[in-house]
Amino acid sequence: MNTFGKKLTLTTFGESHGKALGCILDGVPAGLAIDEAFIQSELDRRKPGKNKLETSRKEADQVEILSGVFEGLSTGTPIAMVIFNTNQKSKDYDNVKDLFRPGHADFTYFHKYGLRDYRGGGRSSARETAARVAGGAIAKLMLKTLGIEIQSGVCEVDGIKANTVDFNHAKHSEMNALDPEAERAQVEAILTAKNNHDSVGGVVLTAATGVPVGLGEPLYYKLDAVLAEAMMGINAAKAVEIGDGVASTHLKGSQNNDQITPDGFKSNHAGGILGGISNGDTIVVKTHFKPTPSIFQEQETITTHNEAVTCNLKGRHDPCVAIRGAVVCEAMMALTLADMTLLNMGKKMEHLTTIYKG
Amino acid sequence: MNTFGKKLTLTTFGESHGKALGCILDGVPAGLAIDEAFIQSELDRRKPGKNKLETSRKEADQVEILSGVFEGLSTGTPIAMVIFNTNQKSKDYDNVKDLFRPGHADFTYFHKYGLRDYRGGGRSSARETAARVAGGAIAKLMLKTLGIEIQSGVCEVDGIKANTVDFNHAKHSEMNALDPEAERAQVEAILTAKNNHDSVGGVVLTAATGVPVGLGEPLYYKLDAVLAEAMMGINAAKAVEIGDGVASTHLKGSQNNDQITPDGFKSNHAGGILGGISNGDTIVVKTHFKPTPSIFQEQETITTHNEAVTCNLKGRHDPCVAIRGAVVCEAMMALTLADMTLLNMGKKMEHLTTIYKG
Amino acid sequence: MNTFGKKLTLTTFGESHGKALGCILDGVPAGLAIDEAFIQSELDRRKPGKNKLETSRKEADQVEILSGVFEGLSTGTPIAMVIFNTNQKSKDYDNVKDLFRPGHADFTYFHKYGLRDYRGGGRSSARETAARVAGGAIAKLMLKTLGIEIQSGVCEVDGIKANTVDFNHAKHSEMNALDPEAERAQVEAILTAKNNHDSVGGVVLTAATGVPVGLGEPLYYKLDAVLAEAMMGINAAKAVEIGDGVASTHLKGSQNNDQITPDGFKSNHAGGILGGISNGDTIVVKTHFKPTPSIFQEQETITTHNEAVTCNLKGRHDPCVAIRGAVVCEAMMALTLADMTLLNMGKKMEHLTTIYKG
Amino acid sequence: MNTFGKKLTLTTFGESHGKALGCILDGVPAGLAIDEAFIQSELDRRKPGKNKLETSRKEADQVEILSGVFEGLSTGTPIAMVIFNTNQKSKDYDNVKDLFRPGHADFTYFHKYGLRDYRGGGRSSARETAARVAGGAIAKLMLKTLGIEIQSGVCEVDGIKANTVDFNHAKHSEMNALDPEAERAQVEAILTAKNNHDSVGGVVLTAATGVPVGLGEPLYYKLDAVLAEAMMGINAAKAVEIGDGVASTHLKGSQNNDQITPDGFKSNHAGGILGGISNGDTIVVKTHFKPTPSIFQEQETITTHNEAVTCNLKGRHDPCVAIRGAVVCEAMMALTLADMTLLNMGKKMEHLTTIYKG
Repeated sequence: MNTFGKKLTLTTFGESHGKALGCILDGVPAGLAIDEAFIQSELDRRKPGKNKLETSRKEADQVEILSGVFEGLSTGTPIAMVIFNTNQKSKDYDNVKDLFRPGHADFTYFHKYGLRDYRGGGRSSARETAARVAGGAIAKLMLKTLGIEIQSGVCEVDGIKANTVDFNHAKHSEMNALDPEAERAQVEAILTAKNNHDSVGGVVLTAATGVPVGLGEPLYYKLDAVLAEAMMGINAAKAVEIGDGVASTHLKGSQNNDQITPDGFKSNHAGGILGGISNGDTIVVKTHFKPTPSIFQEQETITTHNEAVTCNLKGRHDPCVAIRGAVVCEAMMALTLADMTLLNMGKKMEHLTTIYKG
Repeated sequence: MNTFGKKLTLTTFGESHGKALGCILDGVPAGLAIDEAFIQSELDRRKPGKNKLETSRKEADQVEILSGVFEGLSTGTPIAMVIFNTNQKSKDYDNVKDLFRPGHADFTYFHKYGLRDYRGGGRSSARETAARVAGGAIAKLMLKTLGIEIQSGVCEVDGIKANTVDFNHAKHSEMNALDPEAERAQVEAILTAKNNHDSVGGVVLTAATGVPVGLGEPLYYKLDAVLAEAMMGINAAKAVEIGDGVASTHLKGSQNNDQITPDGFKSNHAGGILGGISNGDTIVVKTHFKPTPSIFQEQETITTHNEAVTCNLKGRHDPCVAIRGAVVCEAMMALTLADMTLLNMGKKMEHLTTIYKG
Repeated sequence: MNTFGKKLTLTTFGESHGKALGCILDGVPAGLAIDEAFIQSELDRRKPGKNKLETSRKEADQVEILSGVFEGLSTGTPIAMVIFNTNQKSKDYDNVKDLFRPGHADFTYFHKYGLRDYRGGGRSSARETAARVAGGAIAKLMLKTLGIEIQSGVCEVDGIKANTVDFNHAKHSEMNALDPEAERAQVEAILTAKNNHDSVGGVVLTAATGVPVGLGEPLYYKLDAVLAEAMMGINAAKAVEIGDGVASTHLKGSQNNDQITPDGFKSNHAGGILGGISNGDTIVVKTHFKPTPSIFQEQETITTHNEAVTCNLKGRHDPCVAIRGAVVCEAMMALTLADMTLLNMGKKMEHLTTIYKG
Repeated sequence: MNTFGKKLTLTTFGESHGKALGCILDGVPAGLAIDEAFIQSELDRRKPGKNKLETSRKEADQVEILSGVFEGLSTGTPIAMVIFNTNQKSKDYDNVKDLFRPGHADFTYFHKYGLRDYRGGGRSSARETAARVAGGAIAKLMLKTLGIEIQSGVCEVDGIKANTVDFNHAKHSEMNALDPEAERAQVEAILTAKNNHDSVGGVVLTAATGVPVGLGEPLYYKLDAVLAEAMMGINAAKAVEIGDGVASTHLKGSQNNDQITPDGFKSNHAGGILGGISNGDTIVVKTHFKPTPSIFQEQETITTHNEAVTCNLKGRHDPCVAIRGAVVCEAMMALTLADMTLLNMGKKMEHLTTIYKG
């Protein structure tokens, strides 16, 4: 239940304000060069407090590998990684100890488990996504050896849409913006919301290039279905689109079908997936994030004893979670594709004879 | 890979034009009254050829239970169900034997497996969803004993949106329309496309009421994430929304948060799920279906030997797959919720002491 | 819970006296020639009533493939197989309807599920092993293409041990005896027990040759551990040994270690497995079967209402289940090794580069 | 592949001489009091260097809980535990860096993964069982609330069998001996082997009392089959018996059947399991451990380049691994039973109505 994937499995642990969080990544093939600096750099992309668009909360997010790597190479055994918590201010949460923050998981965790770790949301905190990013970084290293690359960026904020998709721009944008033109208005929307003690939603576009034909396991582990699960499982995600997604619903079949030529598909409405299997074209997924539920306005709520009370949050929070969500989307896509890459092996008898009989 | 669920598992088999298709539903608690007539009635809702909006292809879809039921009750052992194929016209597919139909899985199956059953799409055919409906029907029977009800309807066709959600109307509408007002324009759009040898997209809204608080297994088997996987895995699905979904992206946090009172949530933007766990409110999911890829216009494609060729389809196909997709969405939601109901047992120590120590 | 294996999965269904039993074998690589006559011949080896050492009960055990095979080749989709029940005499069980047969699963099924299908043991009947043999036959076909062969025989009956292991003799022996010398005494022990309305235990030795080095997934899906589960899960099995097993407990380390030379291991006390991974030597497993619990002597038991009653069985039963158990042991070893063969793919990065980058 | 269990899952990581080893235990119900001192005391029972019968190697085996526990109670989220390695002497292994120790997993790991962590066996070291014991300790706490108790002891060493089963004696015996009479000869056999630079085998008997009727999931997650997998997966295990095991093979059916009275079973040849499901009687399992492969005599072996070489081991090793194996057997039985306890919930419809409808 805390494990993602089937052959490459990420099992995570840890609460927002516990001793540590981390993961076990199992199924990494032996002989992969593990670039620890790269893993840390991915965590640095995710960590908060880098600029005014993000929470001012600082987290070191220093990752340590405990197992599974020997002399710089993966050994085929489980890779455990841990991030010790350092800058946790549990006191920020004393005033929400006995009440349920609207838009948060407080209510449901309390009723499901009969108790909850109220400090910073406990297990339900987006802080857990650091473990996903650590695991995703190794998945990226594995995919890179096969020529697969994953990129992302924010394509919409508060209803302001990007008109271009410029991954290089996103890499240097403090809000991971895909469209330099739209970026100004998007930044302004974020800052306005922040000043109003409010928050805004946003959309992340994630893409993978170099994906071979054949990844995805029909019928109940389809590539698009698993990507949908992967993305919808990220904190605050409320919708997932594959390829043209919602827009394809408005087209006729004659417009939406990607016709085929000896040189490849003439278009990519499908987002690189047909019948749940990659078709060799770019994989495109959009993930919609709701506005951050932690806002600094008075809200109605109840206590754990079902008494009406006013909720006044303290603490430090991102006004738009989509920004830091982008690197998490990349991690989830990387984990999905790496898993699918492994699962696909052995789908034809010739795979077996190649490996076992040379 | 052909199994859905963790504790209630549906494993399906069968190709469009093979001898039979069917499923094994494992994990049904012992002592559930199995109403075979209800299962058949669900299959009848899904089967094609009921009216002019659907393919004229007739399929009996007569289901037979082979195991797991004794004297009208589930025994706790696997329930196998089979539907023998009767009206399959393999000849309709002779002309597509060596080419890839645009928008279909032909290309990806051929490359993944090195061969394909070309008759009617083989395993990739939506005909397989009959097995989902059979399994979903038993899940519904199980949920009903707990007071959980699932309903659905078409809320959009070719961009024409429903303004009301009337499940009772949908039950008697030949296109499962949720809005009697919008229905006329929607039907016209479908028929126009059909006359133009084309097809249209559509959106299905599925809802569950009576769901207890606490269903959903964080962090990697969240209720919303699994619903996303369940729906995105249905043939032709391209986007999934939970609750307000895409629309919530355009709201401020102060607008989107569902505030809480001693009598319950003041709104349901969340679609009944917080932190991946049901909050007791109505579960709402929207599934977007692309226009049917089988159209009767000339399309460019290639053969299995990578030669350019024109694709001219024969056969009989739905102009809007969302219509019959509605009952499949219900089945997938039922299977998901029934699985979550079982998985949630044992989440608190008091569950164990109640069951084992009375 | 009714599924064996991780990448090659066998899911079975069916009760002794229901309409049918069968299985879905999922994960078979595409392009394997499916020899239906061979599958049937394996079922014929298992079916009862072939000679005086077995139950006189006749079962046709005619297997039918419903899916997953097209033009003689596996397509990579689930292979469903069904065996319709034909010679079931439910009346034989009318007198045990309300009581628990000693040594059988009646008591535990009734209490676990709150009801039971009492006809012939229902799901707990060894009749279900027909589905294992059908699945195992396809696993054997797959293994054969890689040069792996599985054989078995009875090495002990009623304490009378074989001194030689002659698989060829077993093939033609009506009791699958491995030792022609011991066979006479073993047959006599069986017939004596049968005449006394009693039964005897026996031991099956199963071996696999041609197994490549490297099969088995440490640490919780080790080859020896999974073989132990596979064998112990067969009806009436009470002990499993790997290689020298119990005997190795009586040796010193200096006697039991298999020393290594450039030409291979000097001995095979280990039974071909080190650290849960195959070492290239012959895999050897012994499975101990208790005496058949169905005997025709009066036994004390209780009714479902906990009243003391005398149990007098009718029907037709094998006096020594190990005999027909041998082919089931082969099937379980074949399924295990085929699964391990698939799981091992992708354990080194060079596997991935070979498959994906040629 | 490094995960044991289905609903209560133990995922372990770590190598003998890496930074740390540990585990994530997922699925523990919320609200269980986590007694850290008890967990540590279980690790202390397993840790080496306590007396002359064990290796003189000292390992602190100090366990630290990183997550999943709040204010002394389990929260329902994953419980991560870590043990940092402190007394590892990698230099002891410099001389075996390029050769394969007979009886060890060196050969198979090297060939499976293309490389190996040679220090102390790396992942294949029995040191990993510390993580099992930590997880098993929490499983024991959970089982204890349901009245289930697990005990063990050594019932045979070097062929010298115990005639009595005295768990209380075992608790205070430095070799966990079940029979005070046999203990003297058993100790002598161990010390003689040690003086001869050799090792001996042994057998552990593990038992569970207070187990409710109904645990075990037929047909492919039977209680006996999973116990067999659990025990056979422990380092050096070569045979597993349930109940009378091998001895039951030598009985007639009339002797081996456990007859039933209104007060319970008249005997327990079955070891508390019928048809893969617990019958309420004591669960009894015997695990046979081969003699320690690490001996201090010259042995033939080969290098990683397939050259003949003499193996001369250094380091510190147990002369009889069964002794410390006993606490590991207990842990594996506890994990198995706790998993089965959770899986059994929801097997009857009345379980669901009890939990969800009060």
